[in-house]
Amino acid sequence: MALLMDHQFTELRADGQVDTKSFLESVSYLPPFFDCLGSKVFAPIKADIAGNVTKIKAVYDTDPARYETLQQILEVEKEVHPKEWPKVGATLALMWLKRGLRFIQIMLQSLVDGEKDDKNPNLIRVNATKAYETALKRYHGWLVQNLFKAALYAAPYKTDFLKALSKGQEVKEEDCLQQIQQFLVNFTAAVDAIYTMFNTMNAELDYTV
Amino acid sequence: MALLMDHQFTELRADGQVDTKSFLESVSYLPPFFDCLGSKVFAPIKADIAGNVTKIKAVYDTDPARYETLQQILEVEKEVHPKEWPKVGATLALMWLKRGLRFIQIMLQSLVDGEKDDKNPNLIRVNATKAYETALKRYHGWLVQNLFKAALYAAPYKTDFLKALSKGQEVKEEDCLQQIQQFLVNFTAAVDAIYTMFNTMNAELDYTV
Ligand SMILES: CCCCCCCCCCCCC/C=C/[C@@H](O)[C@H](CO[C@@H]1O[C@H](CO)[C@H](O)[C@H](OS(=O)(=O)O)[C@H]1O)NC(=O)CCCCCCCCCCC
Ligand SMILES: CCCCCCCCCCCCC/C=C/[C@@H](O)[C@H](CO[C@@H]1O[C@H](CO)[C@H](O)[C@H](OS(=O)(=O)O)[C@H]1O)NC(=O)CCCCCCCCCCC
Repeated sequence: MALLMDHQFTELRADGQVDTKSFLESVSYLPPFFDCLGSKVFAPIKADIAGNVTKIKAVYDTDPARYETLQQILEVEKEVHPKEWPKVGATLALMWLKRGLRFIQIMLQSLVDGEKDDKNPNLIRVNATKAYETALKRYHGWLVQNLFKAALYAAPYKTDFLKALSKGQEVKEEDCLQQIQQFLVNFTAAVDAIYTMFNTMNAELDYTV
Repeated sequence: MALLMDHQFTELRADGQVDTKSFLESVSYLPPFFDCLGSKVFAPIKADIAGNVTKIKAVYDTDPARYETLQQILEVEKEVHPKEWPKVGATLALMWLKRGLRFIQIMLQSLVDGEKDDKNPNLIRVNATKAYETALKRYHGWLVQNLFKAALYAAPYKTDFLKALSKGQEVKEEDCLQQIQQFLVNFTAAVDAIYTMFNTMNAELDYTV
């Protein structure tokens, strides 16, 4: 579990906000998650997510004190770009990034919960499909939905996926799942907090790509 | 036709070889071709082709005199990497690049030839499918073939595609097609020469991705 456990998300701040610096730090280790899927088909997705992170980091780096929490980024951008906001800057990047994070969270949670296709217990398609339907499908037009369906067939076997997540260590499947469960605690809290913030600030959009 | 006509391929050298420098120059203007398709779905393809060009250019730049023609690149790499060759370096990049070039060539030629779906004369799917089947399909596994089928639905209407190719100029469809035909002369000769070279040097591979 080198991959996930070495870079756990930190707890939320006492005021319930997400600290930008530690969020960016943790999230920068997620794109390699897609290499665990074992196919170059996922490279464009990895690139899209990495692009979101880069965009948020670029804004943060211009003034770390001003952007101490993610919410401060949204507030400043709302102020600076009243017309375009929220379809602009780091706000837009985070809007999409959180969907990818939700995808990852739901897929891992579903694996931990033992959800499986009884006829093909070693496939993770059912877990990926659940994650996709919850996190992304409604933001994708017919075309991208079809691409997703096709791409799903490139998903690895569950055993290979868990092995890849445990990079460089021999770990029993049980232990691996337990470590994922541990990882999910702070990760889920962070993702939930970001979703809540987008709702509270009325920053969510539902256009499709 | 700004896009294509401003950067025509040069004629082959007298000895029938392809001059590396002018080839790289002309081919570097092709990735924007994919922007004319009007959808971000084609971004990964554009990136793959641009990656091939970058790889070949990097080799060329190490010693322009030594790599004056594309054939010299293959010859040197064959010598330097006897075991891995031809699945290595600029040879591999050119092996794939030529397939993308063949795709473009056949698709444009098919448009010039007036091949169309009589029921949907303004769609270019029939031209793209012909190009795909000739140039790429056999090198793609079932999965990527399915992605192609899905991606095809993102292809623009013929009128929009031709307009995009004529960027910034009002050109009649006839004139546009005539300019494409003109562009195809040296372009086709260069692509043919590269295919011949791969055959002659026994450098072609038919693994699938
Ligand atoms: C010859 C063969 C031809 C084949 C061609 C096929 C081409 C395939 C194209 C692949 C599309 C890749 C997915 C990327 C989709 C993206 O379009 C969307 C929206 O992307 C957002 O768009 C915004 C503007 O509207 C900004 O640019 C954002 O950028 S900004 O930072 O600039 O603001 C950007 O992230 N992101 C998404 O939908 C996010 C996707 C996350 C996915 C999460 C996991 C899914 C895992 C699946 C596992 C089974
Ligand atoms: C949530 C939604 C999820 C959706 C996810 C979808 C993901 C889609 C993935 C898209 C795949 C993009 C196409 C790229 C395919 C590439 O895999 C292949 C082989 O690529 C080669 O591989 C070599 C190693 O074997 C070297 O790395 C080469 O690199 S090297 O330079 O390092 O040596 C590299 O070019 N190139 C190809 O097949 C070439 C493709 C050319 C295409 C030409 C035009 C087609 C136009 C179609 C118009 C209708």
